[in-house]
Amino acid sequence: MISLFSVFFRFDGILLLGAGLPLTEIAQPTGSGSVADAIFTTNNVWMMVATALVFIMHLGFACVEAGFTQAKNTVNILFKNTLTPVLGIVTYAMIGFALMYPGLFNGFLGFNKESWHLIWLNSGAADTSAGYADGGYTFWTDFLYQAMFAATAATIVSGAVAERIKLSAYLTFTLVYVAIVYPIIGSWKWGGGFLDELGFVDFAGSTIVHSVGGWGALVGIWLLGPRIGKYNNGKTSEIAGSSVPLATIGVFLLWLGWFGFNGGSVLSADPGTVSLVLVTTTMGACGGAIGGHFTSMAAMKRIDFGMVLNGVLAGLVGVTAGADIITPLAAFFIGGVAGILVVFSVILLDKLKLDDCVGAVSVHLTCGVWGTLATGIFGEGASFIAQLYGVLACGAAATIGAFVIFYILKVTVGLRVDPHLEKHGLDSEEHGIRGYTILLEK
Amino acid sequence: MISLFSVFFRFDGILLLGAGLPLTEIAQPTGSGSVADAIFTTNNVWMMVATALVFIMHLGFACVEAGFTQAKNTVNILFKNTLTPVLGIVTYAMIGFALMYPGLFNGFLGFNKESWHLIWLNSGAADTSAGYADGGYTFWTDFLYQAMFAATAATIVSGAVAERIKLSAYLTFTLVYVAIVYPIIGSWKWGGGFLDELGFVDFAGSTIVHSVGGWGALVGIWLLGPRIGKYNNGKTSEIAGSSVPLATIGVFLLWLGWFGFNGGSVLSADPGTVSLVLVTTTMGACGGAIGGHFTSMAAMKRIDFGMVLNGVLAGLVGVTAGADIITPLAAFFIGGVAGILVVFSVILLDKLKLDDCVGAVSVHLTCGVWGTLATGIFGEGASFIAQLYGVLACGAAATIGAFVIFYILKVTVGLRVDPHLEKHGLDSEEHGIRGYTILLEK
Amino acid sequence: MISLFSVFFRFDGILLLGAGLPLTEIAQPTGSGSVADAIFTTNNVWMMVATALVFIMHLGFACVEAGFTQAKNTVNILFKNTLTPVLGIVTYAMIGFALMYPGLFNGFLGFNKESWHLIWLNSGAADTSAGYADGGYTFWTDFLYQAMFAATAATIVSGAVAERIKLSAYLTFTLVYVAIVYPIIGSWKWGGGFLDELGFVDFAGSTIVHSVGGWGALVGIWLLGPRIGKYNNGKTSEIAGSSVPLATIGVFLLWLGWFGFNGGSVLSADPGTVSLVLVTTTMGACGGAIGGHFTSMAAMKRIDFGMVLNGVLAGLVGVTAGADIITPLAAFFIGGVAGILVVFSVILLDKLKLDDCVGAVSVHLTCGVWGTLATGIFGEGASFIAQLYGVLACGAAATIGAFVIFYILKVTVGLRVDPHLEKHGLDSEEHGIRGYTILLEK
Repeated sequence: MISLFSVFFRFDGILLLGAGLPLTEIAQPTGSGSVADAIFTTNNVWMMVATALVFIMHLGFACVEAGFTQAKNTVNILFKNTLTPVLGIVTYAMIGFALMYPGLFNGFLGFNKESWHLIWLNSGAADTSAGYADGGYTFWTDFLYQAMFAATAATIVSGAVAERIKLSAYLTFTLVYVAIVYPIIGSWKWGGGFLDELGFVDFAGSTIVHSVGGWGALVGIWLLGPRIGKYNNGKTSEIAGSSVPLATIGVFLLWLGWFGFNGGSVLSADPGTVSLVLVTTTMGACGGAIGGHFTSMAAMKRIDFGMVLNGVLAGLVGVTAGADIITPLAAFFIGGVAGILVVFSVILLDKLKLDDCVGAVSVHLTCGVWGTLATGIFGEGASFIAQLYGVLACGAAATIGAFVIFYILKVTVGLRVDPHLEKHGLDSEEHGIRGYTILLEK
Repeated sequence: MISLFSVFFRFDGILLLGAGLPLTEIAQPTGSGSVADAIFTTNNVWMMVATALVFIMHLGFACVEAGFTQAKNTVNILFKNTLTPVLGIVTYAMIGFALMYPGLFNGFLGFNKESWHLIWLNSGAADTSAGYADGGYTFWTDFLYQAMFAATAATIVSGAVAERIKLSAYLTFTLVYVAIVYPIIGSWKWGGGFLDELGFVDFAGSTIVHSVGGWGALVGIWLLGPRIGKYNNGKTSEIAGSSVPLATIGVFLLWLGWFGFNGGSVLSADPGTVSLVLVTTTMGACGGAIGGHFTSMAAMKRIDFGMVLNGVLAGLVGVTAGADIITPLAAFFIGGVAGILVVFSVILLDKLKLDDCVGAVSVHLTCGVWGTLATGIFGEGASFIAQLYGVLACGAAATIGAFVIFYILKVTVGLRVDPHLEKHGLDSEEHGIRGYTILLEK
Repeated sequence: MISLFSVFFRFDGILLLGAGLPLTEIAQPTGSGSVADAIFTTNNVWMMVATALVFIMHLGFACVEAGFTQAKNTVNILFKNTLTPVLGIVTYAMIGFALMYPGLFNGFLGFNKESWHLIWLNSGAADTSAGYADGGYTFWTDFLYQAMFAATAATIVSGAVAERIKLSAYLTFTLVYVAIVYPIIGSWKWGGGFLDELGFVDFAGSTIVHSVGGWGALVGIWLLGPRIGKYNNGKTSEIAGSSVPLATIGVFLLWLGWFGFNGGSVLSADPGTVSLVLVTTTMGACGGAIGGHFTSMAAMKRIDFGMVLNGVLAGLVGVTAGADIITPLAAFFIGGVAGILVVFSVILLDKLKLDDCVGAVSVHLTCGVWGTLATGIFGEGASFIAQLYGVLACGAAATIGAFVIFYILKVTVGLRVDPHLEKHGLDSEEHGIRGYTILLEK
């Protein structure tokens, strides 16, 4: 009777949802298994921890962007930063993952039907032993780790274009960028494509994640134009962020998350490599903070805490390309230079009247390029020319991709909100609530 | 001389505190041990990570509830959400754990004297090898993981009844609910009781944790009555939360914590199952966000970010019952429906003048029931009838338990604060401080 | 051609940065390796997780200190709490680590040239197998875990001396304290020095980290003097903190981080010991919260949430010295007493007109001393006399060290900001921005 009732609900249209085959075989607990099983399990635990750490970067981005923008747009930015990982993960499952890891392919564009089937049609074979026998993790860990990564590329854009972009335009951009542009570029290196064969090195994505996001951000702010009042009569007004504590929480969470971003990019729990990567990552962040602090002190004659925070992120982006093949001293140096570059990049963008609300282009593009090239200088076994080639190839593709998407959106739905909306703030108009109602009470 | 002094302090009354037997035998480091030891150690590491992740859910709840309620009650809600895990863990150690995992028992009610002794009287035998030789973790890991879980059931209640419940009433309810009601219900399934023998499936607690908390919340808001001014002349006024960033931080932390809540419920680091669970958990959250977004857009004609945030939680609650036996596609679907249900549930509760400050009943009860039943439809090997039976049995017990406690409190100490207190806010009156003194400066 | 270009960049001055020897040998994935490799890998994973958890304590400290101080100084305190780990880690790499773990030495002062070389000159030998064959982690994990620890000792000081100390004075103090004072004291126990040989027990640093930080804080607030307006005509005015939510987030993050602080101090993933430590840590926190709550209720006749939060931290500090050799009941008792002591300590300091903005001296010094002595009473195998001896030796050294540094700073650059600056707030004057611009909008 019970099973009859159950069968009733398993009609054909839904059979897809309840898989016919066993999902996984619960294999192990203590007492059984080989040494290889034990090491595989440990590797997989580390990769799952790394996945959780990369996930928390999305909260970090949300806090940084909400903290660095105005209180009248807080709900709007938080809404975008919540939907970005949601849409990013779903989109990546639907198309991005199969595009990025196509298996054997021509090196430029491919699609992995098998992994797509594993995700959507039948998860029966996706257990420990299937297809990943030599790897450090299961199929599901692989997918989820990469999905968390993919969504960051879009998040980078959201901060730069904040406070004046239409929600519909931003969300559409995110969908297409994460579904198509990011994974195709990623396949060139991480999927074993032509850049990988040329010897291009990008350990955890200074170029593939950060500069790809950064190019998208640059194209976005160029096509959007600056916020009203940002550049007046040749002067740049500083539009203060709403909450320094929120921005600080965000930067610390991003630093924490980077332990998974870089540490997980080893793709196993290999003790020597992963622990070295955590050290180089940390030294990069420290270098960036120090570089950003002293450079802004020199350039602006005051303690600019925003530049210290962006310096931390700049240093982290900088060491991401070569974190596994540089020394801690090189990491500190690369991070320090990144901290210097981020300050000058912010100043330069303002001179060009390119209004980036949170410094995303300077952090992720400028320092992503620097970190990738620096790997060609300081990285064991890397070549400067190959690095330069990778930067240019990925940069061209990301710029063209972002331009096509944003341009189509501009001439169709439009990129920019009504000036009235922008002045009054997106929250009260579009969302009907305020980020902080503390103000309204007494 | 030194040891004499030391002995002096070890008089009989305190000998209990300094255990006579060695607490643990430090066994392992590298070079010794079997494969079984290696896998046991890895399993235990994962379970400890999962414990830390479930712990951080308490911060998540604190942030969500403080963010969704008014600034005049912020200190009060944070005080409750800090004391809830504190009292919950201690209470669970004192009685709950032994009630929930009674060992061999009649299937309805039992008490495990042995585990109680291990916690309180002598920890000597509680090492790696004691009693848990075939499991994936030590006795202490087991206790702490379950204690972190237990406290969440009470936390669910705190948000719903906020802004007008007496502190003493809430804290007493929490003590009794975590000590008695939750663990007895839990023993029926997770302790190997009658629901387990009937084939009821509840992987990580859509019913046992979330709906049990949700029923408690529903009884609480019914007996308490709505906040002053919430329902006037047949109209529902929306009482805006104090801080959307705080609520957003809370939801992200809960999502993160759910990786431990569901991922740890595998009770080992089994690579295939745990990584599948992380994927289904994530797909549930994504489905919930999308479902909540589109449903609130359709129902309320505006972008309701609160419904996106509650949609994420709804999706997470929804997939919790069957996260290890459903496909990612089913998880996305279950989460999506949960996101739809949470919106209609919020609307329905308001129609019934049941004032739930944070949407806890809609998230945890409505979607907990949905997720449990959905496991009977989409879950490999689960039966709809058994699921329905479990939902009803646990629901009846939780409702009766919560009613008895709240009703006794109502007729003795009283449930509700003075209206004067409620209007002026609990913080300045009861706590003597404000949540944000930013306001008072200029 | 490519390699020629690459060689061009590897001129002598930079060759240091790109190491000549392979940094690590990627050894493992599945299928190879021994049981010892598997357990080593698992131990190392746990230690890396613990490192990340201790890192997040720095965000916890930042939030607690910003939350408990005034909004006009928020940027200043966040700036200090960001630079503290940055400078602390770099300083520790440059000198502290080699001072703290000198290898074979005279028991009082030594310097490990080999580890210094491994960090800065050549990382080739620093792989899995080098020098740590019997340990539970790699050289890099060891360094980074200890570096995260070291920076906390300085952070403890920052909260106490907030709102009136000169930035330059604070940062200089931090550099010297982390580079010299903390590691030399640490070497006496953890480096195998004379306190270790005497049988002094300090598992994770109630004395070596917390009381050393606490003595520094005490000396600092004594030499600085109280904030303007704190003690007037024999009355103590309570200067309310800016944000209770921020302080609460901080305390939860510190509790979370303590799972790594104490759990990682096992220095392996040994299942029995680590899981016991997580339980005693948690029971200490719970005891502290309850002790702080009831004591402040009795002493101040109101619910003082600040004392609950500080009670949690007090309990955590209290159990840190003996977390691996006490029972959960003893941990609950030690934490409870710590929660009582922290309240009376705060009252006493105010009587002495020692103005500690966040209660750091009471939490870290008072309860650090209590926890260390309590280990001599309740800890398996510890001696009260040895504990007392350790407390006095480390206390004397820390006090003298802090006094020398602060005194030199006082008579040279000066410790205290201009009264005008203090009244108007450090943010608008020194940093040019406000912590919360929410206020300025409408």
